[in-house]
Amino acid sequence: MGSKQSSRRRFLKGGAALAGLAIGGIPRAIAQVPRVEKADAPPGDSRAYGHRSRFDTSKRLDDTHAPHGMTTPIQDTTGIITPNGLHFVMDHDHMERPDIDPKQHRLLIHGQVDRPLSFTLEELKTLPSVSKIYFIECNGNSQPPRGPGKDSVQDVHGRISCSEWTGVPLALLLREAGLKAGATWLVAEGADAKRYAMGIPLTKGMEDVLVAYGQNGEPVRPEQGYPLRLIIPGFEGNISIKWLRRIKVVDQLYVPRHQATNAELMPNGKALWFNFQIGAKSVITRPSGGQKLPGPGFYEITGLAWSGGGAVHRVEVSTDGGKSWKDAELQQPVLPMAWTRFRSPWTWNGQEAVLQSRCTDERGEVQPTLAQLREVWGINSDFYFQDHFNGIQPWKVTPDGVVHNALLLS
Amino acid sequence: MGSKQSSRRRFLKGGAALAGLAIGGIPRAIAQVPRVEKADAPPGDSRAYGHRSRFDTSKRLDDTHAPHGMTTPIQDTTGIITPNGLHFVMDHDHMERPDIDPKQHRLLIHGQVDRPLSFTLEELKTLPSVSKIYFIECNGNSQPPRGPGKDSVQDVHGRISCSEWTGVPLALLLREAGLKAGATWLVAEGADAKRYAMGIPLTKGMEDVLVAYGQNGEPVRPEQGYPLRLIIPGFEGNISIKWLRRIKVVDQLYVPRHQATNAELMPNGKALWFNFQIGAKSVITRPSGGQKLPGPGFYEITGLAWSGGGAVHRVEVSTDGGKSWKDAELQQPVLPMAWTRFRSPWTWNGQEAVLQSRCTDERGEVQPTLAQLREVWGINSDFYFQDHFNGIQPWKVTPDGVVHNALLLS
Repeated sequence: MGSKQSSRRRFLKGGAALAGLAIGGIPRAIAQVPRVEKADAPPGDSRAYGHRSRFDTSKRLDDTHAPHGMTTPIQDTTGIITPNGLHFVMDHDHMERPDIDPKQHRLLIHGQVDRPLSFTLEELKTLPSVSKIYFIECNGNSQPPRGPGKDSVQDVHGRISCSEWTGVPLALLLREAGLKAGATWLVAEGADAKRYAMGIPLTKGMEDVLVAYGQNGEPVRPEQGYPLRLIIPGFEGNISIKWLRRIKVVDQLYVPRHQATNAELMPNGKALWFNFQIGAKSVITRPSGGQKLPGPGFYEITGLAWSGGGAVHRVEVSTDGGKSWKDAELQQPVLPMAWTRFRSPWTWNGQEAVLQSRCTDERGEVQPTLAQLREVWGINSDFYFQDHFNGIQPWKVTPDGVVHNALLLS
Repeated sequence: MGSKQSSRRRFLKGGAALAGLAIGGIPRAIAQVPRVEKADAPPGDSRAYGHRSRFDTSKRLDDTHAPHGMTTPIQDTTGIITPNGLHFVMDHDHMERPDIDPKQHRLLIHGQVDRPLSFTLEELKTLPSVSKIYFIECNGNSQPPRGPGKDSVQDVHGRISCSEWTGVPLALLLREAGLKAGATWLVAEGADAKRYAMGIPLTKGMEDVLVAYGQNGEPVRPEQGYPLRLIIPGFEGNISIKWLRRIKVVDQLYVPRHQATNAELMPNGKALWFNFQIGAKSVITRPSGGQKLPGPGFYEITGLAWSGGGAVHRVEVSTDGGKSWKDAELQQPVLPMAWTRFRSPWTWNGQEAVLQSRCTDERGEVQPTLAQLREVWGINSDFYFQDHFNGIQPWKVTPDGVVHNALLLS
């Protein structure tokens, strides 16, 4: 804190939100602070595994673009950890969530290897492990709002979450199996009824991929792949295979059927396959669409930034529609391929204002505007229908304090 | 990973736990990996807020020392984040858990200040905030096991958890209120029916204390003080006042009644008050008491280290009862007053072995043995009944693979 806080001293001065108390008002104010009697008995199992307050009603919403998806309420989240109960879910209609008994589950490593291996969950847990905080983002996140009332930060950008994942480095398992000369790609397959599978470059598999059994300190949730999920940091989420049952090492690119349509149109009219990596991206989560500021005064602008290309280097915030920018404070530690919480102080004067954030990652990649993205990607679309949309998200505050999605209005 | 992993190549060689597959066995092995049909419909609200697998039965246990306490299953945890549902609870019998409507709740800052202040929760959320990963440990953690079957790492050391806390720095609120000359202590009070209160040195209050409304990305749980908990990093947990309703700035030490008996006997027979800070400490969580190793072979030893005095500097692991020690790997990032996950590879030869860990913090404080603690603290006790016990915890593996609490046996 130190000197930085000192310079902020009395930042509440003149703000309408907070009321000082006259000395004579203290005893009355103390009496007004409610003391509450003991709560009703909580649900039966709440001693073994506790619950939220009944006043905490933050929840996932049905995905407006995908019939089986659920979005994370990122406007309500604090810090960089997503509670497991609120992690977004994108169950494509070619997937059905299996109910796996971990004692029966096996992970098979085979294909172009010297020693095919089969592991039980308990065997994997005896091996060297790592724990890393990584985001997972759906490649279809941040698609156009489905109209007013469906344009909150959760509706538009809620297909992302961030967790502490624990598991065995895939590279370690592949080295144990022994890679044959010519091995270049991996095919990872889930234990869901339809065997969802994805091709992954072996170079990435040897770099930082995890075979994860832990999510935020407990077993991976069923929605996220219990008992095993492949975590591929910085890559689009659908590659991080849930309910992982086998990894086949192969000597050329295979295109599993679920990946065959996963392509993006380029300016030359051709399609780009395997654009795995998430770009530099950020969004202000508070204030954001659908919220209402109670009146002029001081507000902390806060939001989340991330990049599939490494650590966030810088986040700038503009409160005047992009005319001027200033550096936001980044919450330490800033971790690669993880959410970075950013914060910027703002005093609202009650007039119309447009708030937006811009991320620069450690490679120097700068989050683009919608107009810049349209130049590159907008060949066959009138708006931003492409996957991997990472354009700057503006929020317009009108004089009544209501926050609107200004990308919808543009 | 890189060179470190390379040196571990083929560490599974000779281990009994893992079986390679003959080439001809592959198709059969693939067929054996279960594919599972869709799960039964989950409970009603699981879309809005998801649940664990029905196979995940890890749970808090009744505290063997405190009638209202619940311990965290630290033997099952991964990484450094404790899921909110598994956070330990120590509701002293002078506390009853209130059921607070956040709209009615207020935080009052008053006493020796220029401008007494009253805040609603929404007002606090507009202020500059920080997010920090901190452990909270009960001062009564790690007391003697209550006999065989009550001597697991959860029973003995489970009164600690670690979360990402988000809130407003208390120093900021105190500066806003304006400290009067002579202000030296704080009294913090909860909104529980009996007004649990604690005295806190103002120097700590101005350093790193948080008025927290966020716990691992969602609101602080009712068990932890919903909607507001004072988080006092590195200090014994009972000072981190739950259901925080007011902070009074005072000009001398007051001793709230709940604090009056909180004293520890010293070698000179006098009692030490206000020994707030948690010492350098660590414990191996896997393998640990009550677990059973399936057979000789490779195991990763893993555990948790922490210190109220700052960051963990070093953790050493011994597998021969303390005759020799080697440095464990510390999971990055290592954060001050947070859990640090440590890991150390071990190949068990099937003979009796005693495993233990030793933490050194950034101040150079080294975790002591029980014998060393007895020299200082054991005046009126035959064993280790003192609060703030941070002695080294040995686990004995017998040739049948069963892990025993060797401190109980000593």
